Parts: sequence; structure tokens; C-alpha cells
Amino acid sequence: MKQVKYVYTFGNGKAEGDATMKNELGGKGANLAEMCRLGLPVPPGFTITTECCNDYFANDGKIPAALRPQVETALKMVEAQIGRKYGDPKNPLLVSCRSGARQSMPGMMDTVLNIGLSTSTIPGLIERTKNERFVWDSYRRLIMMYADVVMEKAEGIEPFEGKGIRAILEEMMKQYKYIRNCKADTELTADDLKALADAFKRRIKEILGVDFPDDPMAQLWGGIGAVFKSWVGKKAISYRRIEGIPETWGTAVNVQTMVFGNMDMNSATGVAFSRNPATGENKFYGEWLINAQGEDVVAGIRTPNPLNNATKSDKNRDIPSMEEQMPAVYRQLDDIRLKLEKHYHDMMDLEFTIEQGKLYMLQCRVGKRGGKAAVRMALNMLDEGLIDEKTAVLRVSPNQVMEFLLPIIEPRVLSQTKQILKGLPAGPGAACGEICFSTEEAIAATRLGKKVILVREETNPEDIDGMRVATGILTARGGMTSHAALVARGWGKSCIVGAADMAVDAPNKMMKIGDKIYREGNQLTINGSTGMVYEGALPLVAPTANQDYSLFLRFMALADKHRTMGVRANVDNSTDAKKARDFGAEGVGLFRMEHMFYGEGSARPLFLLRKMILCVTQQDREAVLKELFPYMKKDIMGTMEAMEGLPVTIRLLDPPLHEFVPHSQLGRAELAKALGIPEDEVRKRVDALQESNPMMGHRGVRLSVSYPEMTRYEAIAIFESAVELSQRGKSVIPEIMVPVVCDVRELRHTKMIIEEVHKEILRRYALKDLPYHIGTMIEIPRAALLADQMAETADFFSFGTNDLTQMTFGFSRDDIGSFMKDYLDQRILKADPFQTIDQEGVGALIKMATTAGRSVKPDLKVGICGEQGGEAASVEFCYQAGLSYVSCSPFRVPLARVAAAQAAVHRELAKTPAKAAAPAKAVAPAPVKRASAPAKAAAPAKKAAAPAKKAAAPAKKAPAKK
Amino acid sequence: MKQVKYVYTFGNGKAEGDATMKNELGGKGANLAEMCRLGLPVPPGFTITTECCNDYFANDGKIPAALRPQVETALKMVEAQIGRKYGDPKNPLLVSCRSGARQSMPGMMDTVLNIGLSTSTIPGLIERTKNERFVWDSYRRLIMMYADVVMEKAEGIEPFEGKGIRAILEEMMKQYKYIRNCKADTELTADDLKALADAFKRRIKEILGVDFPDDPMAQLWGGIGAVFKSWVGKKAISYRRIEGIPETWGTAVNVQTMVFGNMDMNSATGVAFSRNPATGENKFYGEWLINAQGEDVVAGIRTPNPLNNATKSDKNRDIPSMEEQMPAVYRQLDDIRLKLEKHYHDMMDLEFTIEQGKLYMLQCRVGKRGGKAAVRMALNMLDEGLIDEKTAVLRVSPNQVMEFLLPIIEPRVLSQTKQILKGLPAGPGAACGEICFSTEEAIAATRLGKKVILVREETNPEDIDGMRVATGILTARGGMTSHAALVARGWGKSCIVGAADMAVDAPNKMMKIGDKIYREGNQLTINGSTGMVYEGALPLVAPTANQDYSLFLRFMALADKHRTMGVRANVDNSTDAKKARDFGAEGVGLFRMEHMFYGEGSARPLFLLRKMILCVTQQDREAVLKELFPYMKKDIMGTMEAMEGLPVTIRLLDPPLHEFVPHSQLGRAELAKALGIPEDEVRKRVDALQESNPMMGHRGVRLSVSYPEMTRYEAIAIFESAVELSQRGKSVIPEIMVPVVCDVRELRHTKMIIEEVHKEILRRYALKDLPYHIGTMIEIPRAALLADQMAETADFFSFGTNDLTQMTFGFSRDDIGSFMKDYLDQRILKADPFQTIDQEGVGALIKMATTAGRSVKPDLKVGICGEQGGEAASVEFCYQAGLSYVSCSPFRVPLARVAAAQAAVHRELAKTPAKAAAPAKAVAPAPVKRASAPAKAAAPAKKAAAPAKKAAAPAKKAPAKK
Repeated sequence: MKQVKYVYTFGNGKAEGDATMKNELGGKGANLAEMCRLGLPVPPGFTITTECCNDYFANDGKIPAALRPQVETALKMVEAQIGRKYGDPKNPLLVSCRSGARQSMPGMMDTVLNIGLSTSTIPGLIERTKNERFVWDSYRRLIMMYADVVMEKAEGIEPFEGKGIRAILEEMMKQYKYIRNCKADTELTADDLKALADAFKRRIKEILGVDFPDDPMAQLWGGIGAVFKSWVGKKAISYRRIEGIPETWGTAVNVQTMVFGNMDMNSATGVAFSRNPATGENKFYGEWLINAQGEDVVAGIRTPNPLNNATKSDKNRDIPSMEEQMPAVYRQLDDIRLKLEKHYHDMMDLEFTIEQGKLYMLQCRVGKRGGKAAVRMALNMLDEGLIDEKTAVLRVSPNQVMEFLLPIIEPRVLSQTKQILKGLPAGPGAACGEICFSTEEAIAATRLGKKVILVREETNPEDIDGMRVATGILTARGGMTSHAALVARGWGKSCIVGAADMAVDAPNKMMKIGDKIYREGNQLTINGSTGMVYEGALPLVAPTANQDYSLFLRFMALADKHRTMGVRANVDNSTDAKKARDFGAEGVGLFRMEHMFYGEGSARPLFLLRKMILCVTQQDREAVLKELFPYMKKDIMGTMEAMEGLPVTIRLLDPPLHEFVPHSQLGRAELAKALGIPEDEVRKRVDALQESNPMMGHRGVRLSVSYPEMTRYEAIAIFESAVELSQRGKSVIPEIMVPVVCDVRELRHTKMIIEEVHKEILRRYALKDLPYHIGTMIEIPRAALLADQMAETADFFSFGTNDLTQMTFGFSRDDIGSFMKDYLDQRILKADPFQTIDQEGVGALIKMATTAGRSVKPDLKVGICGEQGGEAASVEFCYQAGLSYVSCSPFRVPLARVAAAQAAVHRELAKTPAKAAAPAKAVAPAPVKRASAPAKAAAPAKKAAAPAKKAAAPAKKAPAKK
Repeated sequence: MKQVKYVYTFGNGKAEGDATMKNELGGKGANLAEMCRLGLPVPPGFTITTECCNDYFANDGKIPAALRPQVETALKMVEAQIGRKYGDPKNPLLVSCRSGARQSMPGMMDTVLNIGLSTSTIPGLIERTKNERFVWDSYRRLIMMYADVVMEKAEGIEPFEGKGIRAILEEMMKQYKYIRNCKADTELTADDLKALADAFKRRIKEILGVDFPDDPMAQLWGGIGAVFKSWVGKKAISYRRIEGIPETWGTAVNVQTMVFGNMDMNSATGVAFSRNPATGENKFYGEWLINAQGEDVVAGIRTPNPLNNATKSDKNRDIPSMEEQMPAVYRQLDDIRLKLEKHYHDMMDLEFTIEQGKLYMLQCRVGKRGGKAAVRMALNMLDEGLIDEKTAVLRVSPNQVMEFLLPIIEPRVLSQTKQILKGLPAGPGAACGEICFSTEEAIAATRLGKKVILVREETNPEDIDGMRVATGILTARGGMTSHAALVARGWGKSCIVGAADMAVDAPNKMMKIGDKIYREGNQLTINGSTGMVYEGALPLVAPTANQDYSLFLRFMALADKHRTMGVRANVDNSTDAKKARDFGAEGVGLFRMEHMFYGEGSARPLFLLRKMILCVTQQDREAVLKELFPYMKKDIMGTMEAMEGLPVTIRLLDPPLHEFVPHSQLGRAELAKALGIPEDEVRKRVDALQESNPMMGHRGVRLSVSYPEMTRYEAIAIFESAVELSQRGKSVIPEIMVPVVCDVRELRHTKMIIEEVHKEILRRYALKDLPYHIGTMIEIPRAALLADQMAETADFFSFGTNDLTQMTFGFSRDDIGSFMKDYLDQRILKADPFQTIDQEGVGALIKMATTAGRSVKPDLKVGICGEQGGEAASVEFCYQAGLSYVSCSPFRVPLARVAAAQAAVHRELAKTPAKAAAPAKAVAPAPVKRASAPAKAAAPAKKAAAPAKKAAAPAKKAPAKK
């Protein structure tokens, strides 16, 4: 039997792995190896593969036997490099155990530091460091972390009286500090910390029933197992569900020599980005803390210091930067950032520690960035020759471009309003909503249709669901690299962090700013682009032409250059149509006439519709249709005019009858009068319209079959509009779309009516021709199954994926609330199919229907007008399925344009003969290994969600296509 | 250009066509040609093809130019044979124009007789026949018929003041008879009839605005066109919709020399069957009338005389038979019937006319017969060596075997009840319901869920829809070959005709029997097997072991011998299961546990279910499930025991939650008490369970995902039942079926729960094994699309075609009432897909899923448990799709067995290398041309509805299969 290689070592400028091995080593492990290979100062260590993680679970959660000897061998290599021995009482080696999946899952899995400290090794370390306080502080940290991660969570132990062991130990420490009259942890002496450590161990035994392990090897194996187990922890599962990460990926474990940023005042730790992740400017940007461990920066417990002078803000103008305090180390770090950018062709996110003046690199990865920053970086790097056009297009996730369109506070109102609070602008865009202080409340309020600002002292991974539903996030603590900031930026959500002048009292559901108290339910407006917080709900408006808009336009032009699939918009009226056109829509994929029955000005048409619904004879219906006609025509003509020169797909009426019947006594009385029948008769007819499952009831083309006169009048309105507009010199080609079709004979029936009207119009206006198209929605499974028949009669198809998803799954969209959460939680479904197209099932129907339709009519135009048409993964799928266009809400048109462009680029890159990095398995293409390998291109990624996942393409500019 | 052959002549022992040419010449034309070839006395004539009919409509309803010369040539041939000339003043030839489609459509299309009579030819005919009265009577008949069929209906003229021209002319004649004091038409003299004819012509001109044509050739072309047009008449369209006959078939037109059964007392006309169509006995059976034209017999205007002594009934014992009155002609006719049976290998339906003592054959076709008669004939003919086994199996339509299971009146009640009326037993089986006197009322009452007996003076084709919805039909006039009798037998509907002692006053919605008046809504019971009518609603029971039951058993055994696909039953309890077993079910394809919540004894389980639905915690639900458990187990065990030795498929609970929540205040109060919560809270939880589209809501396996404990308890009940039964020595293998699955992970989830329970049971009972299967319903389109994935986890599939049809069409079965009629009327759908499987759409999914499933698991068992599983065409489809079994309601099991047997025989026959008659086009295989061609077999018919459509196979016995 061949031995599985579970362990890859790195250190001293050499490494068994490299950056292409993310699938095996996780992102962290692969990049640690890569940095070693680049000669950067990385503390030596080794990575246990993701495969081993899977084997661990397959082995009933026990360490696979083959792993032990490999770990022991690797440990010996590390010991040799560092000159210390693990568990050696004299000169002990300490290590960290860190998780690391293919894709970054910040804070979702567990880490244990300072492993290897025990009663036997403590004296040796004190001897070596001459720093008794440091050693005991490290030991109490190890105990707290280990008890929490390894002894409690990994063992699946329920919190004691609702409180986790970590909270219990922290409470002990808090009490002790109070008694000893210490404000900061740093005031605790070595003796204090030793006493605490002893107390901690006793308490652990009492609560968890087992001793804190004093054997360094036991500690190590406990740490490794705990990291594996954290892969299936609640937080990690929830995050994977949101991000669509498969469980089968597993996590790697990185065991690495400990270096200490908290050893003394010549030690430090920090996080940096090779460019500013918020603005995209090419300025080295980061935060650091002297005498601290990494978690202090990331967790936002202390607000950190600026890295250099160029990126100081008003808030930290007076705090010394690393550039000022440790200029030599800073220069070394700045060199490293330039080296890494040139190597990875992308903005990098770095973690470093300085131990007694010596710099160590602990992590590097492609950095997350906000949307505007992503666009600016892509364009800058393109201009700098660092990446080519195709790569630039891939560098911005479709969701990120939406940031340019994020609402801003109405400028006039803004100029007259004073902020009540200021924090760090962590996630751009303005948002307003009711204050909520917990995830539970945020979810509950959102269910009631409210908009919510989640206000927290600081966020942690437990808040993930609340952050998701909130319109905006506001925290009192934490920096630009804190949990809240990272998550919000990833989602393009408005977020302000580190608003320190706010005192949050979550248990009492209130907060204080100055003297003023704000309670749950009070309205708040935040501007995540500036960090300003305002009282009340200020009016928000579209961004129109703000200063960054030119960046947006340049990027969109670049995307359009590479895009081949069309993008249209779903609109309800001419205002929508104009907006869609501004956003780059190339036509209307779905014009819904039903708009006239909703909202302002709808009273009369709605009354007429109700009247028509209740008519019994065709004659009566026609009389009402005549009255309704001007309203239909006005909306149709307005929309066609706004879209002049571009195609407009007009869907025939599909009003949900049961929603429109009058349920009030007054409404019935009015109708009774209008129809000249008794009220009782109205009630009877209304009752007859009730349906058990209206979604599958008398709707769409079924109405046309029963009441052909409806279709007749709609066709007249469409053709008259077309004629009158063309008489005014406007070029319009209406596309008439028939909804809810399940049999081609429905389509033929409707086409016959429309053709008759067309002939009449030609005669009436003495025209030779009046071009138009007639097509069908494919929103019923049967229509998809019989698409070849449909194509004989239809000029085009448009997939109505909302209904198609309902019927294909047998899910009523209005009713899935009762079980969809269970389905996602239990991972029965990977995603809500109403958000993103179910590629396996619904997608199979789309592909089958497109193929069958084109087998009959090779040039058949095929589009999609369901709401998924504005969702990035669905757009990519539509491109792969060969659709002619996607159509979505006007606001999402830019997103769709970028997604379509990326889909085209992905296909182009897939065609490139150059070897792509692990194209079949990799979701995030690995960075190129050698900057000098010009032909190496990014592999087509299946999911274009985060730009951080995209790899640099060669510096050579790609020739312009088309 | 090649000349299309539109006209085929026949006469004088020769014919251009033959019996295989039904598609071209229609049934009547093909068989007239065949009879000529057999040397039978057929008046010469010619047939215009169905192709010409299609060309006629393609030519905008004008006679195709190519037809005219062909008709003229054919007419010359006829003139030469008969020795008279069409339009000749001296010795004129008269002809009839009759319709004739591929498949008999009795009374649905039009006929014109006596064509060629005009002012110029009348004197010549009087001269030749020496019978002035006969000639004027023929003329007035021509005028009445022609005005109605050609001048009014074919021209699409709306009736004048609601009255058709025929009714107007009849009213005139009635008035005239009254004035002249004549009771019967026969009392009118030649002068009277001449005066009437003149008056008719004047009135026609006044009302229709055109002259009655006096030119014989104009009459002929008018007649031909009218027959074509009657193909698209309302009645014909409605009949085709019901019978599933495509419009593209068209009708042929038979132009034939007139022979007159009404020329004198030595003339007669009649209809006969080569065997008794009601009982199946091998006795020549028929009815005739002296001095009458054919329509007099068929329309039931006069109650006709018996053909021979052997078939006289109590009612017509004293009326002279043809055997007595015209013994020579009778013997000739009897020879012909034997000749025809031997030639066609089937029971034949004959029409004949005797003109002044000379016999003419006007029609022969395979005769329609009732179900019991069909079985008896098939078995008799098999015994006689006239047909082989396969043919015998095909001779009985699946629906017809149901007649053996038709309800009868409870024998003890019957013995104590006296009939109020007696008529002819035209359609077997007992029925009871409310009296309705019109089609409209029958339909309206049926919509209210009532059972209806349609009572008419006599029925005509306009009554077809009312006859369809009625449970039984009762008419005062007409014989066994009347319209009502033919239609009822075709549908297997209970029917009594010719109950002359009943006076029907339809306009006043009442009838009188003796002195007693019965009104609309009064209850009546009829016994269509005996002809007895009873007052009130007598209790009906299953037939158990009546005298014909042994015939049924023998036929079913024959069918089973040829059947290869399994037949199971859908049952709700052990009573059903026993019944199903009696009917030959080979297992249970669907056992629904929900039965315990309905009907008798359901109060407690229903209360528990309601309680469970409203529980919030899993703990509470489990507590209720424990209480519910004994009810579940009892039903499961009972059903398994009743089916001992056969497989039982148990569907996991799929209760429609929204139906079960208590809507009454009392129910809520009770639950509030039981749950220990306020009533308001109950109301809130009930509201939360309301769904917009419950059909696509929280149901089936979705409940299992949310509430796995439900599945747990169901699995315990199933396995405990299996163990306890096997401990009692009963062999049971439960098949657990998961409903409403759309993703394989739902199935895996449920399978995991079931496997856990299985392990527990094995442990608890210390068993080594307890075999069971787990499978999935395929009732959601997505499950069908991803069937390959499903098959990895499922041991079997069962298509739930009710839901699958709902989702595939987007039709809510509860709501299609509002538009299904429009869809069928406008022929957008050929049939209601909930009645018979939609083979194109739903069928495509079934085939795809079966293929995909078996590609993963070649021996995958695949069945169907939707209601279509008991419908003949659907069973045939399931066989073709390769399903392992169909499952249907117990009562329909015999039907499914026959349908499955026929499907297998069809495939066997299709494999036979011998040339089958027009296999691609013919629905009804034509009879063999030569009795001496032994290899000629019936082609596989697409629809096995009427045995009359099946052709005789060679007399050689087929070797027994298997």
C-alpha cells in the first residue's frame, strides 16, 4: 500500500508545497510554502493536508494512523531548523495550530496558540526569554484557548449553565483584575498570571471533568484534532452554506513555530494590505500593535495603530506609525509587499509578527476589497501592466460593481444634518433602519418587513446571520480589518466599525451617544462610505454622478468589450425603462402591463379590471376592455418610446385574478352598481374566482383561451403604439410574449388572434408591413419538455425562472418560509433556488429546451426574465447554456453586464492552450508560480463571487476582442 | 401532374376498393366494396375518399375541380349497371349521399336520401313504379332532409326564430295531418303529399331565401358538399373530442343507388347483428320494419319487429318476425351473416333493405357490443376456432370487463321491490340517481355532485353530453339499436330504452307512469341488465358471484396468460386490500396511512394529528406521536396481513396540513386545552399553517426534514408490524415509499432515519435480518429530471402521476374547472391529463426518469400509483415505457390487467413479420381481406377502447406463451 502524504513541510527558504496546492494545503498552507520559496522570513512548520481532514472524519473522528509518524518526522525537521526541541524542558519549541481551507473563512474555524507550554517546559522558556511574565501570560492564554477550543467545543460539550468555559475563565480573570485593582491585562504580574493559570486548571477539571493536559504531545494532537473538528462546527457550516463551499473540501492544519509579538516592547504584530482595500489606492496600508498577539488586532479588542504616515487618518493622526517607530523593519516589510504583488499580480493581505525586532511573515493571501477599491485596483493594475484586460474584468465581482450604485443620503438633506457619531468607513453605501442589538432581533424584525441596522459592541462569527439580514452594521470597536469590516466588505454591505463614542448596552437593548439614549426600534442612518452616523431615517437617493462614477463607467466599458451575451431589463413603465437604459440595458426583456393596476393612478384601471373579471358575457367584457384600452396603450407606448431603437418584449396580461377581486363590502357594492347586478351575485362570482392553488390556476395564456377578447385588445394597443411611434420617426419592434404556456396549441391560438389584429391594423393604417415578433415564456415544465414544438410557432423563448423553479421543485414561493431554513441548514439544498438558478434541475430544463428549440429554429432568440437573471452565478449559467440574453431589474443590469463579461472571459481562458492551474477542481485559481511564465492564465472559476479568488493573468495585454 | 384518385366505384360483384381501405374510403365505403367483392347484393355506387374531404376544406369549402369528372364517370358506370340514368325523365336513377369516417360515428354526420327527384324526374319514376304516393312521399322526404342538411346546416344558417327548417316543415306537416284528420303519415294520399311538397318549397324560399334545387346534378353536388361539411358540425366535433378522433381523418361520401324499403308491403328495411350484441349468444339478432326507410328503424320512431323467432322477447312475442313473414329472404340474409362472420372473424352489424321482395345489403361493419357480450363472444369464437387467443384478448376493451363488476341492486331489497316500469335492457348494470329531463339539467346537477338518471322521450346526438355525465339513461322510445342503446353500450353505461309505458313531459320537467307523476329531482333506480325501473334509490352492491362471473374469470385468466406487466392496487386499509386481492392485485402499490384521519373511527387520531401539527417543540411532537403510534401500526399491520406474501408499498405520511387544522372555535378550544396554551395561541399557530398554494407547500418528505420524529415513528410501526407478522409465520416485505421528493438528499435524509430505526429493531428483537425496500415517489418534475441520482439511493420508483401532472402542466387539479372545458372544446388539449396520462409531456418525464434510473440500477423496479394507473390508454403507455407494474384502485384492477395484457399482445403482434394492415396510420385495423391468408394479424392499435375496432386474427390458434 502506497503511503498517503499527509504532511508538507516548509521553512528556511524551502517548502514541499507551493501556491498551486491550495486544494491540498488550504490557502494559508499553500501561501506559507510559497513565501518560503520566495525566501521570505517564515517561521518553519508544516501543513497537514485537507485530505487528512476528510480521512479523519471517515475514521470516525480519530487521527489516521499514517499521520502520526509523518508529524513526528516533520516536527524533527522544524526542531532542527529552529534549534529548539518540542517538549524540551531546557529550550522548548512552541507551536501554533491553525486551520486553513481552500477558501478563506475568516474566524469560522479554530486556532490554538502557544502549544507545547506545560509545567515541564515553562522553566526552560523562562530561562531562555528571561521574561517570566510573558511566559505565564502565554500559558494562561494557552489554557483559555485550549479549554475552549479543544476540551469543550471539539468534544461537543454543551456550555455549563449556558456559559462556555472560555466565558467562565474570562469572568474569573475579570474578577481577579477587579480585586487586584488592575485596569488592563498588562498590569497583571507574573505571579498574578501564574495564580490565574493554576485556578483555571482547577476550574476546568471541575467543569469539564478532565485535567488540562500537561503533556506537550497530547496538547499537539488535541490541537490538530480540534482544528479538524472545527470544520464541522456550527459557525463553519453556516458560513459554508452562505458562501456555497462544499463540506468535502475539508480544512488543512498548519503547525508552525510560535513567534511572539507580545514578548516585549520591541515586539509587535500586524495586518497589512499591499494596497488600500477600501479605496483601492496604491498605498501600503495596515494596522499594527506593539507587544500584542495577532488575535488582538483581528478581533478588534484594541484599536490598532497605523502602519505608515501616508495612510494616517484624522482619527489616528497623532498615534505613531510603524514607519516612525520601527523604520528598518517597516522598510523590510514594504519590500516584501512589493515583491509579493509582483509575484501574485494582485493586492495581498499580509499578517506579520515582530519578535524582539525580527520580522516574521505568518500569512499572505489575495486581499479582500470593497467594490470601488476592486474597480480602481483592476484599472490601475491594468494601467501598470501588472495584469491584462481579461484579468482586469475578472478582478471585480459582479456584486461589487453594485457599490457604485449604492444609495447615498440625499445631498441637500445631508448638508443640513449633523452626524451624531463617527466611525471607520468599513462597508460603503448609506443605509437606514431600526436599531437592533442582536442577531435574533434583527432576524425577527426583518421577517416583519423592517429594515434593520445591527448595532454591536463588536461582531463575532456568531453574528453572521444577523449581519446578513441587516441593511447596515455599526460597531463600537474594531478596525478596518476587524470581523465586521471583512464580512461587510465581502457582501457589499454598508458598515461602520470602531465608532468608539457609542456605549452599547445590548442586554438592555439600548445605547448611549453622549447623553442621548437610543433604543431598539429607533431609526438610524449610517453612511458606510464616510463613517458618519445620523439620527432618524434620512432620505436616500441613487448615486447619480459621484466622483468615482467615471471609474465605474470605464470598467463597465471594459467589461462590455469582452461581453457577448445581451443584457436587458425587466420594467413596468417608462420611468423604469429610462433607468434601465441609463444602466446599459440593451432592451426590455419583460414589460409587465399589470403595473397599471398597482400604486398611484391605478384606481380606475383596477376598478375596470375588477369589473371585467366579474363579467359573464363576452360582450360585457369587450365593453370594459374598451374602457381599459387607453391605459394599456399609454403604458405600452411610453415604454416602447423610452426604449426607442431597442427591442421591447411585452408580456400579455397575466394578472393574478384572485388578488384583484374585491374583498371589501364597499368594493363589491360599487361593482354591483357598475355591473347592474345584485351585490349577492357579485359575491357569488367573487367566490367562484377563488382558487385552491392560484399559482397553478386560471392565469396567463389560459385567460386568453377563455377570453380571447383580452388578447385582442392588448394586441391592438401594441400595434397602434408601434404604428404611431413609427409615424413619429421612432424605430420600434414589439416582441409579444405569451405567458404560462404549457402546450403549443395555446401559443397557436394566441398567435392567430394577434395575426388577425395585425392584418386589421395594416389595413386600417394602409401599411405594407409592421414588423413584430411573437414568442413564449417557458415557465411551465411541460413547455420546456416540448420546446421543439414551441419553436415551430415561437420567434423567441424567454425562461420565466420564477415559475419554472416553482413547478420544477413543487415549491410555492409564498410558502417555502416554513421549510426552506431547514433545507439550507441541513444542506439538503445548497442554495435557495429562487435566488440562484438550480443548475441541476431547472438548469437541465433550460438547456434541454434551448437545444430542442434551436434544433427546429437555429437562430431562435432565447432569454431569461426570471429574477435570477440579475444574479451572478445564474448569469454565468445562462451564458454556458447558450442564451442570447438575460433580463433583470434595471438596478441589477450593471451586475449582469459584468457577470456576462466574466462568463465570456472564462470561456476564452478555458480555450487558451496554456496549462491552467488545476482547472477541474480549483474554485479559486491559484496564483501563477513564476512571474516569468507569461502563458499561464487563470483557470475558469465556477463561481465569480469574490475577486480575491481570481488569479493574476500574465502581464502581457490581451488583444482587444470583437 | 398525377391525377388524384378521389372516387372508387363498386357494384355487380366488383369494386375498386376493399375492406383494408378504411382510411381512404371510411368504414362504410370500405365494407360496401368488400361486400361487393364477396358477391353480396349491394346496390351499385361509388365512394369519394376522405382525402377529398380534406382537400375540400383546404380548398375553402369548395368541391375540388378534379372531383367533378371522376364523379361523372363513376355515375356513368352506376347508370350502366342499374340500367337507369341520373336525371333521366323517363327512367331516373335516384341516389343517396351518406357519410362514412374511418371509425363509426353513429348519427353524428349527415345523410341525404332520394337525391335526383325533381319536377323533371318525378313523372318518369311514377311511370316506372306505378306508385304515385310512394314517389311524392319520397319527394317530400327529400325536400325535408335536403333543406335541413344541405340548405340550412351546411350553409351555417342560424335557425329562424330558434327553429330549424326541418322543425318548421314538420310542424307544417303535423298541422296538415290534423286538418286532414290523418293519424299516421301513411294515411296521407299522393295528392296530400304533392301539396305538402309544393308548400315546403315555398316556405323554404321564404325562410332561407333560395329555391329548393330542381336540377338533379345541383342536388347531388349539394349533397356531397353537405356531407363533407357535416364533418365539422357541432355534434361531430363534440363526438370526436370524446372519442379522441383526429379532425384530420375526414369523412368519405358514399353515393349509392337508392333502394326503397318503403315502396310497398313487400318492401322492408332492417338492422341485424350476426350474434346477439347484448348477451353475446351465437344467435342471429335484429330488428326490421315493413314498408319503411332505414332511418325509421335507427331513429327509434317506430318500435321495430323481431328478425326471427329465436330472439323474440316477452314484449314482441306476438309480432310476426321476418323469418315468418319473408322466409326466403330471411334465409338469404342468414346465409349472408354466416358468410360475413367467417370472412371477418367477428360479430357483424348489418343494414339491409328489401325492395319489392329483393334483398339489398346497405352496410356491414364490426358490431358494437356490451362488455359481457364481448367476453362471451371472444370466448365462444375462440372455442369455435374462429379466432386465436391473442385476438380473443384484444376483443374485449379494458373498460368492458368492468361490466362484470357493475353494481347490482341488493338482492334481498330487490326481491321485495316491484318495478314501476319495464323497458329494453340496453346498457347493463344498475344505477340510481335523480331524474333529469335535459342535458343542461343533467350537467348542472352533476356539477353539484349529484348522481343523475337522464330521462328522455328518445335521445338524439344533441344529448351526448348529458348522457355522458348521467349515471344511467332511460328512454321511452327506441329499440336495442337506437341511438341511446348504441352510445350507452359503447360507454358501458346503465341504460334502458323503449320503456313505452312512461309519458315524458320534458318541458314541464315531469313524467307520468300510470297515474303517478315523477318530477325532476325524484330518485329512480334502473337495472340496465334487466330493463326494470324502480322508484327511489335502492341500495346497490357489488356483483359478487352472479351467473356470468365464470365467464369473467375465464377471460381474466386468458388475459393474465398474456400479460407481463404487474398490476397492484392503491389501498387505504385492510378491507381495500382484501378486495384488491380478490380482483387480482399482485400487491399494494400505494398504501396511504392518512386513511386513519378520515371517516369512521377517525376522531381520536384526527385530534392527535391536529395536536401534533400545532406542537412547537420536538419533545411535544414525540409525545403526541407516541399516542398516535398504535393507530398507525394497526392500519399498517392489517394491510400487510391482508396482502401476505405480496409486496406492500407504504407511503410515508403526506397529510395535507391545511385541511387538518381546526377551523371551528370548538376545535380550537379543545386543542388549546389539550396543549395547555391559550386559544389565541392556537389560532395564531393555525394561521401560520395557512398556505397560498398548499399543493406546493410544506408536505411529504418536507415534513420529514422538518420533523424527523414523524418518520421515525412511522418506521417503527412498519418494522414492528413486519416482525410481528413474520413471527406469526406470515411472509411480508414492506416497501417504504417517500413522497414529494425533489432532491436525492431528501431521500438520503429519510433513508438515514429509517436505517437507524431498522438497526434498533434488529437489536430489540435480536434478529439477523428484516428485509425491506426503500423507494421514492416521482411526482415532482425535478425528481424525474434527476432520476439517475435518485436511483443511487432508491430501490424503486413509483410515479405519482397526479402531482406530476399538476406540476408539469402547472395545473392545479382543484382549479382546472374554470378552464378545462375551454381547453377541451377548443381542442387545445386532446384529453384531460388527469384522466389519461399526457404521453408527450408527463410521459416524456416518465420515460426519461425510467431510463435514467435504470442506467444506474438496471433492475430498478418502476411503477405508477397515480389514478391514471387504472385507465386503459395509460396502462398501455406504462407498458411501452417499460414500467414494472401499474397500481390503481382495487375496483379498476381487472381493467388494468386486461389493458396490460393487450399491451403485451400488441407488442407481440407488432413483432410478427407478417404484413399488418396499414400499421402506421390505421387506428382500427382493417379486417383481413382473404379468409385464406392465415398469417395476417391485427396491427397494434394505439387505442384499445372499442373492441369493434379490432380486427380478426387468423383462425389458427396461437401457441400459449410463457
